[in-house]
Formats: sequence, C-alpha cells, structure tokens
Amino acid sequence: QDTLAQLATGLLSGAIKVIDCAAVLGPNTPLLKLPPEIADDTPPIEIHKISEYGDRGPFWAWNWLKLGEHSGTHYDAPHHWITGKDYPDGAVDTIDPQYFVAPANVIDCSKEAAADPDFLLTKDALIAWEKEHGEIKEGEWVLMRTDWDQYNEDADKFLNANETGPHTPGPSVDCIEYLMEKKALGWGTQCVGTDAGAAGGFEPPYPAHNLLHKNNRYGLASLTNLDKLPPKGAIFITAPLKIENGTGSPVRALALIAE
Amino acid sequence: QDTLAQLATGLLSGAIKVIDCAAVLGPNTPLLKLPPEIADDTPPIEIHKISEYGDRGPFWAWNWLKLGEHSGTHYDAPHHWITGKDYPDGAVDTIDPQYFVAPANVIDCSKEAAADPDFLLTKDALIAWEKEHGEIKEGEWVLMRTDWDQYNEDADKFLNANETGPHTPGPSVDCIEYLMEKKALGWGTQCVGTDAGAAGGFEPPYPAHNLLHKNNRYGLASLTNLDKLPPKGAIFITAPLKIENGTGSPVRALALIAE
Ligand SMILES: Nc1ccccc1C(=O)C(=O)O
Ligand SMILES: Nc1ccccc1C(=O)C(=O)O
Repeated sequence: QDTLAQLATGLLSGAIKVIDCAAVLGPNTPLLKLPPEIADDTPPIEIHKISEYGDRGPFWAWNWLKLGEHSGTHYDAPHHWITGKDYPDGAVDTIDPQYFVAPANVIDCSKEAAADPDFLLTKDALIAWEKEHGEIKEGEWVLMRTDWDQYNEDADKFLNANETGPHTPGPSVDCIEYLMEKKALGWGTQCVGTDAGAAGGFEPPYPAHNLLHKNNRYGLASLTNLDKLPPKGAIFITAPLKIENGTGSPVRALALIAE
Repeated sequence: QDTLAQLATGLLSGAIKVIDCAAVLGPNTPLLKLPPEIADDTPPIEIHKISEYGDRGPFWAWNWLKLGEHSGTHYDAPHHWITGKDYPDGAVDTIDPQYFVAPANVIDCSKEAAADPDFLLTKDALIAWEKEHGEIKEGEWVLMRTDWDQYNEDADKFLNANETGPHTPGPSVDCIEYLMEKKALGWGTQCVGTDAGAAGGFEPPYPAHNLLHKNNRYGLASLTNLDKLPPKGAIFITAPLKIENGTGSPVRALALIAE
C-alpha cells in the first residue's frame, strides 16, 4: 500500500490525527504593537456582516473582514522584511507550494518561558536538544513551544509589555544563525511575532525576521497547541492565502500526528 | 517505517508533490454577482499597504485586506446557508479539523463543460464514474473538474452571464442528493460557487448549498489545477481561516499526489 493510501486510511480511521495549531481570528485577536514614533501598526480585525438569512439574502449568511496579513496565527514570507525583498519567489503567491507541508521539530521551552518571559532559545540549547531527539534536518520547521497560547484571550498577558517594552520569549541571534546553517525551512513561535519581545534592541534588530527572510526562509507566529505535538514526527501544514504580492497571511496551521 | 515518516521522506524528496489548487487573491479576483433586488454582493478584494520598508516601518512591508469570506478559492461552512445554521460545529472555527485533510475524487467534466457551459453533473454520471474508477466513500471530497480555472483572469468569461443570467457548470439536484447518501465530506467546483450558474431557479434553489449544509457538509469553489490530479488517490488539504463564527473562508487548497 502506498504512502498516500495509508495516509487516507489513517486520516479516516483517526489513527492519524489533525491538530489545530491556529487561534481564533476576530476583534479580540492580540496584535503586535510597535513604537508609534517609527511605525504604523496593523489594524484590529473587523468582521462585517453582509447578510444573515434575511432581507438582503434570504438563504445565506456571509461576512467580509478587515484583516492584516500579519494578524493572529500567521505566516511571514521573505518579502515581509527588507532583507528578503528581492527574492522572485518571496511572496505568499510565489513561494513553491511544496514547502507548505513539511516535518516539524518542536522544542519544549515551556518551563523556561514560564520562569522568565524574556527567555531566549540559543544555539547551544538547540544542539543539546538535537543530542536528545535527533538532528534538525534540511527543509524542516523548528517550532518553539512556550505554551504562550494560554494567553491568547488576554492581549495584555499575551503581549506582556511594560515601561521597558514587551517581554516575550523568542530566539537568540545565534539560534537563527544555526538554523540557517542547518537549512531549516523556517522558525515558528507561540508569541505575537517570530522574534522575542526585546528583539528590537538586538544586533541585528529583529534577528528572526532579518535572518530568516535574508535566507528566503519562512516564519510562523501565534501558533497554538504545540503541547500536543511530539518533539519529532509531526507533519506541519501551513498554507498561506494566495494574496497577490502578499508579505504574509493569517494561516490555519495544522499538524498531522500519529495517535 | 510509519506513514508520517514515509510522508516526510516523500515530501522532502519530491516523490510526493504538493499541488496548488488556489487562485491568486487580489482586486481582480472574480466574485459572485447576485440579483440586486434580493441581495447584497460580497465586496471586491482590496489590498492596502501599511508600510513598505519606508518611513512608517524601516525594515518591513505589510498590508491589510478587505476580504469577503466567500472570495476566490474558498470554503463554504454549514452556517453559510439557512439549512445548516443550527449545527454547533457548523462554522469555520468549530468544524472538527480532522475534516481539513481528506481523500479526493476528481470527476473529469472538462469536455462536457467546454461543449455546454450549463452542463450539470448528474447522479447517473457519478454512478458511471464509480464503475470505472471505484466507489466514492464516506468522508471523501468529490471535486468537479471543468478546467474553468483557465478563465480566472477574465471575470466576464469566468462568470459567463448574459440577459438570462450566469451560465456555468455545476451539480444537478440528484447529484448532491446521491453524495449525501454516500456520506461524502463535501463537494467542490472550479466555478465561482458550488452551484451551477442557473441554480437559483432549481428546486430547491441552490441545491449544492441547500443540501450540503443541511447535512453539515462542506463546499469548495474556484478551485484550480484539478487537471493535475488523478481521479482517485490525491489527499486534499483545505484549512479555512479560524474566523470567529465564520460562514466560510478564502482557502489555499492543496493536493498531495504521488509523482
Ligand atoms: N516584529 C515585527 C516588526 C514589524 C512588523 C511586523 C513584525 C512581526 O512580528 C510580524 O510579522 O507579525
Ligand atoms: N450561490 C450563493 C448565493 C448566495 C451567497 C453565496 C453564494 C455562493 O456561491 C458562495 O458561497 O460563494
């Protein structure tokens, strides 16, 4: 029996389970806040009714949305960052779709992030993780589990900002450098962006964005349910909307796991 | 070697190929037009720049969108139709994600649709197809290939309306009744909606919408590249955005096929 036939059987029997790794998109979705002196923010999500089984459409309900490309659980394409702006295959409508289904490595940093909201995952920690769980290979996602999805309903906790700025966990500069050496497909987190809250002050600023996209690689943010995935073995599905010249897209990230 | 490990190997080697079954989303995306006396239309897609490596964000580019739930390549949830409005798991954020990855049956109607834009796929034609290709099973998609995606760049051809209304191929009433008997997961087409252009005059009106959603099943419209899929054997990935109480969603539909 070939692989796709086995996959079909497994999906229909439930032996292969589909895990929802996306948060609800709506007016309460927490969004990135940037310093107003240097940048405009992405607007709050709005959902507008067109009709609801009534006067202006008797049998149907539907809505339109005001929706930022980088809202909620979302995908960052290389064109999101100046370092990746010239890749001809660097927008969500030009990336090779082969990359939208790929193996995932899940690095459990939940204890460290609970103890220190500014926790950074480093190259050394990744090397130690590989010793225990196996090598991170070319073309695979690396996902930082922090269980930050528990704060999705509470923007203040999710963004965790005070007078010194946002405090959320993320990658160190050498973490992303190491993943680029390993030719990882991309990097995902459970916080509002792929970078740590304090990353605007790193060198380079926002190293996940800067280095991933400079290398024509991808980012994922606001992922949920990573606590339900094994360290290795899940297949991650991240199909951004095919927005014309889109720099990113909200995404219904899914994981396939063996039950 | 287990199924997901084989899938990982196949994806990375290219032995399993990911086919993009979505059209570009942008201001030129063709949209449904309804009779203005009875209904409001979904608005044209707009893409608005927030910043582009400039004054209001030095390192990054991003946009926000005005985007209808039923725009371009999209997913119809049961709550889209009055017949499905009471299912507690009938909105895009409450459907079991297990259903977002499922086997597909692709019915080639490209010759018939080229010869007659009002072509309807019937129950008898489905039964004849099953004799040749195998049974349509519970939990599987049934996709009507018409190669209508060749008209995606030309809304007039895509919608094909004249003074007697739109003329595009779709399912007959007994086609959808038969699929509901077979417990298919849903029905997808390459035209602007799941129903034929003339379906407003069928009994019941819009039978695909009416009957699919009455049975808590799903629809897909404006699919592309179905000519690249085998009649049986592809795995279809259709993960709608997790819009709060969403009646549907633009979707980056993908198919996995064995090369
Ligand atoms: N860090 C950023 C700085 C500027 C713009 C966006 C971001 C994101 O994190 C994002 O992609 O959500
Ligand atoms: N046929 C319709 C009638 C009313 C509203 C929407 C539709 C669709 O086809 C759709 O879901 O795109």
